[in-house]
Amino acid sequence: MVVVMKPGTQQREIDKLVAQFQLQGLQVGITNGVGCTILGLVGDTTAVDMDKISINEHVERVMRVQEPFKKANRKFHPEDTVVTVGDAKIGGGNFSVIAGPCSVESEEQIVAVAEDVQRSGAALMRGGAFKPRTSPYSFQGMGTEGLDLLLKAKAATGMPIVTEIMSPKYCQLFEDKVDVIQVGARNMQNFDLLKEVGKLSKPVLLKRGLSNSYEEWIMSAEYIMSEGNENVILCERGIRTFETYTRNTLDVSAIPAVKKMSHLPVIVDPSHSAGMYWMVEPLALAAVAAGADGLIIEVHNDPANAKCDGQQSLTPERFDNLMGKVSALVDLVGKTLIK
Amino acid sequence: MVVVMKPGTQQREIDKLVAQFQLQGLQVGITNGVGCTILGLVGDTTAVDMDKISINEHVERVMRVQEPFKKANRKFHPEDTVVTVGDAKIGGGNFSVIAGPCSVESEEQIVAVAEDVQRSGAALMRGGAFKPRTSPYSFQGMGTEGLDLLLKAKAATGMPIVTEIMSPKYCQLFEDKVDVIQVGARNMQNFDLLKEVGKLSKPVLLKRGLSNSYEEWIMSAEYIMSEGNENVILCERGIRTFETYTRNTLDVSAIPAVKKMSHLPVIVDPSHSAGMYWMVEPLALAAVAAGADGLIIEVHNDPANAKCDGQQSLTPERFDNLMGKVSALVDLVGKTLIK
Amino acid sequence: MVVVMKPGTQQREIDKLVAQFQLQGLQVGITNGVGCTILGLVGDTTAVDMDKISINEHVERVMRVQEPFKKANRKFHPEDTVVTVGDAKIGGGNFSVIAGPCSVESEEQIVAVAEDVQRSGAALMRGGAFKPRTSPYSFQGMGTEGLDLLLKAKAATGMPIVTEIMSPKYCQLFEDKVDVIQVGARNMQNFDLLKEVGKLSKPVLLKRGLSNSYEEWIMSAEYIMSEGNENVILCERGIRTFETYTRNTLDVSAIPAVKKMSHLPVIVDPSHSAGMYWMVEPLALAAVAAGADGLIIEVHNDPANAKCDGQQSLTPERFDNLMGKVSALVDLVGKTLIK
Amino acid sequence: MVVVMKPGTQQREIDKLVAQFQLQGLQVGITNGVGCTILGLVGDTTAVDMDKISINEHVERVMRVQEPFKKANRKFHPEDTVVTVGDAKIGGGNFSVIAGPCSVESEEQIVAVAEDVQRSGAALMRGGAFKPRTSPYSFQGMGTEGLDLLLKAKAATGMPIVTEIMSPKYCQLFEDKVDVIQVGARNMQNFDLLKEVGKLSKPVLLKRGLSNSYEEWIMSAEYIMSEGNENVILCERGIRTFETYTRNTLDVSAIPAVKKMSHLPVIVDPSHSAGMYWMVEPLALAAVAAGADGLIIEVHNDPANAKCDGQQSLTPERFDNLMGKVSALVDLVGKTLIK
Repeated sequence: MVVVMKPGTQQREIDKLVAQFQLQGLQVGITNGVGCTILGLVGDTTAVDMDKISINEHVERVMRVQEPFKKANRKFHPEDTVVTVGDAKIGGGNFSVIAGPCSVESEEQIVAVAEDVQRSGAALMRGGAFKPRTSPYSFQGMGTEGLDLLLKAKAATGMPIVTEIMSPKYCQLFEDKVDVIQVGARNMQNFDLLKEVGKLSKPVLLKRGLSNSYEEWIMSAEYIMSEGNENVILCERGIRTFETYTRNTLDVSAIPAVKKMSHLPVIVDPSHSAGMYWMVEPLALAAVAAGADGLIIEVHNDPANAKCDGQQSLTPERFDNLMGKVSALVDLVGKTLIK
Repeated sequence: MVVVMKPGTQQREIDKLVAQFQLQGLQVGITNGVGCTILGLVGDTTAVDMDKISINEHVERVMRVQEPFKKANRKFHPEDTVVTVGDAKIGGGNFSVIAGPCSVESEEQIVAVAEDVQRSGAALMRGGAFKPRTSPYSFQGMGTEGLDLLLKAKAATGMPIVTEIMSPKYCQLFEDKVDVIQVGARNMQNFDLLKEVGKLSKPVLLKRGLSNSYEEWIMSAEYIMSEGNENVILCERGIRTFETYTRNTLDVSAIPAVKKMSHLPVIVDPSHSAGMYWMVEPLALAAVAAGADGLIIEVHNDPANAKCDGQQSLTPERFDNLMGKVSALVDLVGKTLIK
Repeated sequence: MVVVMKPGTQQREIDKLVAQFQLQGLQVGITNGVGCTILGLVGDTTAVDMDKISINEHVERVMRVQEPFKKANRKFHPEDTVVTVGDAKIGGGNFSVIAGPCSVESEEQIVAVAEDVQRSGAALMRGGAFKPRTSPYSFQGMGTEGLDLLLKAKAATGMPIVTEIMSPKYCQLFEDKVDVIQVGARNMQNFDLLKEVGKLSKPVLLKRGLSNSYEEWIMSAEYIMSEGNENVILCERGIRTFETYTRNTLDVSAIPAVKKMSHLPVIVDPSHSAGMYWMVEPLALAAVAAGADGLIIEVHNDPANAKCDGQQSLTPERFDNLMGKVSALVDLVGKTLIK
Repeated sequence: MVVVMKPGTQQREIDKLVAQFQLQGLQVGITNGVGCTILGLVGDTTAVDMDKISINEHVERVMRVQEPFKKANRKFHPEDTVVTVGDAKIGGGNFSVIAGPCSVESEEQIVAVAEDVQRSGAALMRGGAFKPRTSPYSFQGMGTEGLDLLLKAKAATGMPIVTEIMSPKYCQLFEDKVDVIQVGARNMQNFDLLKEVGKLSKPVLLKRGLSNSYEEWIMSAEYIMSEGNENVILCERGIRTFETYTRNTLDVSAIPAVKKMSHLPVIVDPSHSAGMYWMVEPLALAAVAAGADGLIIEVHNDPANAKCDGQQSLTPERFDNLMGKVSALVDLVGKTLIK
């Protein structure tokens, strides 16, 4: 951490602040220049509150030098984390595809789509039972009944289930029935929910918030990990920018950046990034090329009548075609596609 | 709603789509041009799913003409909503100031600050008991104990309490003890929480999310209102942009825009927008001049030792000075300052 | 400037870098910690290239401590700059309003509007002769002929002229005929143009780019000032965000922030920020309340037939009404309205 | 174009507006509903000014249905444009790589780098002679002398030259000496410059502005094309967002989106997007996978001593390694790498 003093600060004010830092167990180096003093702080600054330092009337600026996260930090855990779910593996050279409809609508639908995507090479199945919708008047998902239909699809195919949790009150239910618990973009900083899923044993798929920085995203993973659950999969799903042509702007740089900062696996959701089915393929391939550890893709057997997000869903045929290309590209980048 | 057909679409495809809309009770007008057909839809389109229409392979684009919200819509409720809390009133020409520390730290602190801000003209008191923090290693608030300290400050001053809820599990507690329930920016689209507070009888102060549009913000109010609780106060607290000098970018345009779209009162939080105490005054005055119905301001009697957000907290002296200016300006714009 | 070394960097690599900085005349302080070394650099770092330091393979991060601008920096020039144009003054407690149509369309139009806005209290007149338009098929302005019409309006009213320059080739023409030379938002980083207007004697009104930071904006002023022209007026006109309801998002924080960083006057353009005439008043008043030194407002005597930006233009009646409120507010904040 | 009337507008006002549109040669369809009238306009609306319609006091909203660009529009020119420069081809299944240093520094440097990148498979050479820099105190490029050094590198290798123009005054010089004229991101809406390069015969490489939409970018290409120069190459180089870890956020969606909207080739600059050399490879590969027609990459033989952008420059060795991967991926996506 670096503290820049205001020009003209008296020596005794600097001494006071230095003593305060030393009391917190930090080492302090001082650079004196004409009208400018810089304090360099080293030691464990994770719990030091920058804002509290910046209140000091003699302080001009405070800058963090070390990342504020520990458990998710690649510096302290250089090897890739590999999240294992049944036969599927995500991370450490393993590439897995999660596929399925935006929302569970019926037993026929979810079982049919699960069988289709499995045949094309998906390793896990997705399907929303609890749906976060911008409007209270939109379809809100089938709820617990939807979860039961997902279990039928799992029984039929053996594929693990990935589905979204929206409230801490369903934690036990998800712990019992679900294989990977998804925390959606809008709940990325729902800290109470993060703490609760951190107490469960199932892996958590944590989507990046619409306008959250890499650091904030990893800090949300840190919330989950600090409660004991270290199986976190990060999912980039596009950020909000001024561009309105796409639903969101896929940030592919997030893949190499976050993988450098953290040992956690990073997967990509091209469906929500694009918001249009015809753009899913180029974005999915871009994600693989940039080093993603997996994809989560919306597939529906009747997009025109889907209860939500039909416009961005692939048909099973289109998904099958895409998987051929994904498979070749995963090979080229030297990873192993888990089916 | 307007549906633009792709160039070259055959008449029978257009007829099919038109029939489908008519089945939903909508009137459809058709504009035919060389290689371009436009369908105009009128009637109650609130529940029509734009995305479902846009899946149709003959549709080029779908555009909404009417707002997707009803209960919050000024068109159906032209008069300003006035939210009354004890002696305080917000909206409809009434201007109220909410003030207090970022977090409740001790009985002495919260009672002292409450007395100070009341003396300077605040009508309601704020103080965080449950704190949303980016880091799991930061102070998370005093929790239920903090709520009890707020009640002591209320007993001492008579001022109503505004404080943030972070989880549905505390709904009953807040219903019992709190006067205005705040939903924070990071929970603006925590739909489960919105539905739960919508079932309570206490007014809800709904902060705008970091990168949410006016429409999404009002739709979140609509979630609360659709459950029965129509006492919603909207609070602009700055949005996230590329500018890093300020903590957030205060969007003053939100005040006239949202007040035109909705009848709900709009207040402003200059403290979180600025992130620096010396910028609170110009932003607070800008908000009043732009037509805000109130302000929510962080005040601490010892900012240098505040457990959070000290850098953006005003001292009671600075707050008192600011209130003098706010009072004169509220007069000038023809509103009534409620003390 | 602060340089953070990578963990585990050998001492001789640190020594090499330190020697390099000392050669550039900088003083270097070193903070050594377990696996972390921080170098604090003081002296004149304005010309030090951060990027060049960050290439060093042993460097983890470089952070600037001092602003990269000098002539525009309030630290080296604590008093407000006052720009004087004829009888008008901007800055240092003086508040001036610039008003007129988006573009000059005819002698009748520009003279009539100039007389109208003068009567209502404007001190300077605006009118576009060269128009930057997104589409090559839109009206591009009357060009040099438009400048001559502006001179007729000046002859009729005595008001100084503010108009936009789009190409260095017109520098001499503007130097001869115009009183304040406007550089538009889209040319804020047209560095060749900045250098050329920096060689002229007329004040320059520099609009902030659509997505430029405060620092970049001031650096563009520095370009002009470094060529000798120190009469720069900064103009906030809204930034681009995800919100589409408004044309741009007015950033009122820019007023106190930039005035703290720089001694240059800051004015606000509420017309381009809002993009809708009915929002001009609240934004204009917000700007005054936040400490702006002036306003630039679009006024047209026949908005419905304006050749551009009619939707955001005030009629002379609305402008007159607004000026009454602006005048009262300028008084309240203790500034002097120059008419 | 669609015009939505305000609820309650009288029929004669609607009739007046309809007549006005018909006078402009447009066909108008009318949808009447309870309290809502929608006008659908078809015909050539390219030159219709939406803003002028929205001034009408009875109009609630105006929405464009057709793109405002013609010459760049894929609808009117379904085949891919292929830009040919010497032996290089960009577009239509041809993939070309442009490589070289950020700025020309000496004959030795530019010739050596040109030979290196050619050996690794680049088809064109880049090098800045005129440099747009945020600070007036940074290195501004070697100017015309730099152009002459580029010609020496061309003589040595036969590779066409790509370099940036910053002012209309150098148009003739660039027409004479340069093979592809680059218009930088900061000049994307320098409309005077666009018009001037539109009169030249050399292809133009048009970078996307930091916060410009796809439509605005294509409209800037339309400016160039409307003056007669139809050889425009679009270049995505990252946009500005709230994320500060990367210099810019590469928007890979721009590739499929803009190629759907326009027939012009789209290339990607991973160097400026990333701002860090180690991120160039994943972004370059992502761009190829997403369908880009080429890449422009910064390569320097001594990044540590580069006069600018060394931190994002590849060494010739790293570039050579990258080209092996690019080549394999271009093959996989079915394009032809032009060497």
